[in-house]
Amino acid sequence: MKGKLYRMVSTLRSTTSATDNPGSQSALRKLNEQRIVETLMAGPATQAELSRQTGLSTATVSNIVKVLHDAGVVATEPTTSSGRRALSVRLNSNSAVAVGIDFGRRHLRVVLANLAYEVLAEENITLPLGHEADVSISAAVDLLDSLLEDAGVRRADIVGVGAGIPGPIDHRTGTVAQGAILPEWVGFHLLAHLEERLGLPVFVDNDANLGALSEVTWGPHSGVENLVFVKIGSGIGAGLILNGLLFYGQVGVTGEIGHATIVEHGAVCRCGNRGCLETVASTTTMSELLSRGQPEPLTPDEIVRRALAGHPAVLRVIDDAGLAVGRALGNVANLINPEVIVIGGPLADLGEILLEPIRRGLLRHAVPLIGETTSVTMSALGARAEVLGAAALVFQNADIAHR
Amino acid sequence: MKGKLYRMVSTLRSTTSATDNPGSQSALRKLNEQRIVETLMAGPATQAELSRQTGLSTATVSNIVKVLHDAGVVATEPTTSSGRRALSVRLNSNSAVAVGIDFGRRHLRVVLANLAYEVLAEENITLPLGHEADVSISAAVDLLDSLLEDAGVRRADIVGVGAGIPGPIDHRTGTVAQGAILPEWVGFHLLAHLEERLGLPVFVDNDANLGALSEVTWGPHSGVENLVFVKIGSGIGAGLILNGLLFYGQVGVTGEIGHATIVEHGAVCRCGNRGCLETVASTTTMSELLSRGQPEPLTPDEIVRRALAGHPAVLRVIDDAGLAVGRALGNVANLINPEVIVIGGPLADLGEILLEPIRRGLLRHAVPLIGETTSVTMSALGARAEVLGAAALVFQNADIAHR
Repeated sequence: MKGKLYRMVSTLRSTTSATDNPGSQSALRKLNEQRIVETLMAGPATQAELSRQTGLSTATVSNIVKVLHDAGVVATEPTTSSGRRALSVRLNSNSAVAVGIDFGRRHLRVVLANLAYEVLAEENITLPLGHEADVSISAAVDLLDSLLEDAGVRRADIVGVGAGIPGPIDHRTGTVAQGAILPEWVGFHLLAHLEERLGLPVFVDNDANLGALSEVTWGPHSGVENLVFVKIGSGIGAGLILNGLLFYGQVGVTGEIGHATIVEHGAVCRCGNRGCLETVASTTTMSELLSRGQPEPLTPDEIVRRALAGHPAVLRVIDDAGLAVGRALGNVANLINPEVIVIGGPLADLGEILLEPIRRGLLRHAVPLIGETTSVTMSALGARAEVLGAAALVFQNADIAHR
Repeated sequence: MKGKLYRMVSTLRSTTSATDNPGSQSALRKLNEQRIVETLMAGPATQAELSRQTGLSTATVSNIVKVLHDAGVVATEPTTSSGRRALSVRLNSNSAVAVGIDFGRRHLRVVLANLAYEVLAEENITLPLGHEADVSISAAVDLLDSLLEDAGVRRADIVGVGAGIPGPIDHRTGTVAQGAILPEWVGFHLLAHLEERLGLPVFVDNDANLGALSEVTWGPHSGVENLVFVKIGSGIGAGLILNGLLFYGQVGVTGEIGHATIVEHGAVCRCGNRGCLETVASTTTMSELLSRGQPEPLTPDEIVRRALAGHPAVLRVIDDAGLAVGRALGNVANLINPEVIVIGGPLADLGEILLEPIRRGLLRHAVPLIGETTSVTMSALGARAEVLGAAALVFQNADIAHR
């Protein structure tokens, strides 16, 4: 019967979690609450205004406001509207705090954000390459404790923890799947370990998915229904917002554009195939191409610095990589016809130097109508995209009024 | 505000039409009606059972049953259930008839179907290659009249007409976009012309989209949430069911996998690019490869016949084409991780001869987890997939209780 059930979904900022029955009363209630909260983000409103703006009945609005008030999420005060008595409702933003964690190959970022999508505290640290998952988790637990203290946030106000990792997550098992940029983490049940260590509800997702979510919540693309976020780093992956929601496909592994075949008999890829996009356009490949005879491989930051200084070989390598990414994105656009493609990752500061060849590759390989109507832009969120997306994931999935 | 509005969608068999405000009362009412109708397809039920099975309140069910009864869509009769008086409701299947039309390069198919997804009448005719849109439309109008008479269906029972064409439709203008296999139709406003000639509500879609819809309604893949339907013919295109719904992207042009670059500097494609999948795997290309020195090019039927008879050159050409299609589908699966890929079009009778190289190409080019979990199968609906999908499009979009 599952496939036949109806589902209420919002176009933005609300997915029902995988464990909820999508047609259930509790899912519906949660969505209606999110609707009210989202409307209040624009500023205080009376109950009558909330009803008009959300399309919910006045009785439903009044029930939800009562629940949110009891949970401390909103404050109310009597007022008058058109000469009648009314109840004004405003968001108590700091009453609900989301924690975002971005686990990287050699970094860890943690952020605290409130319901109004304001950052309350933020910190990032460097970790040794090839570290075990436990090292990261312990560091995250410590970092969270110190951020809570710095920001004066009570643990009781945390509604949940969102965590992103640079690798696919198999939704059938909840574990990190083969293909992760963190090979030490494959098979690891991040969600279970984090929940045990933190004693808080945890939501886990792939970093490119969180980048995509970030763009339509924190970023400038709020309201965009179909968006692709591409992370170009040591791996290349994409997150998809389709019909306003993060798209997970069948087993949760989507956006694997790093393994699109670009060169039929090209270099061997870590996935076991040959000539994948990652073998020609990842920062690792760029670094290898540019580091011959150098004592140390170039870091992504150094690639950016040299490109901005006009080094010809660096510019050429970036141009070739951009064209290849554009070619892969031409196929992506041909398939799902997004409105916007956002490029993120450690090369984001390159701006037009990287965007121009990507656009050129896209226009060359997409069918004309699609090439002309797809805009390609650089992420404005930089290295914070994933961690901010992790916090947004919490507000989308946690039950803020019943914790 | 549009991007922020909430939308109620079903997982299957119900899209709100593009013109409806997705959060509106009328869209909600239509969806609830569809829920009741869908539940009744399994057989008669009491109002209490309908309420339990749909999750709708008894008051809502009772209102909808009344509306559907007044429209003649359901019949009711008093009964008892657990010793209490109850109202048994059953579908009056033939009270609502959908017309499906499949416009092809040289064929025209028309079907009449009832609410229980039973075919009442069906016919297909051959048209000259390169015919103008008007010729097809006139033929469709005549064919519909004769089918209605044959099947004894009253015009008043038609809830709408679904029409499929082998080409993309630009949703911003409602016209046939560049890239259609019917070049004479580009820029043509099929919907407006059909509505004028038929005096009935019309819904228009791309043929590959209708193939996909067909598989999850008429076909064996009912309940599949993420499915790709690939039509291999003179063109190659895909229709996508994502999260249970046909996916249209930004401007309505999706699934253009025929223009995935397979050979970097390959043959020139009608899209203006080089080495597209269509240049190596369409039936036109197969026919060209196999018809050197022949007086007439091989038809798709003849390709199938010779392959089944074991002609080595034909088998080799099909193998190469299948591998290329599989490679393109590897990229598709890496991106959207579907559960099932269904192959349709005039080569469907090839069965494993075509499926095997497609699967081989997919496994070679998809990341392992995705390759292993994606099933590839031949359409069981054959040449009827598109026309049946066109009829299904009507039941998804038409307002069956208010015409």
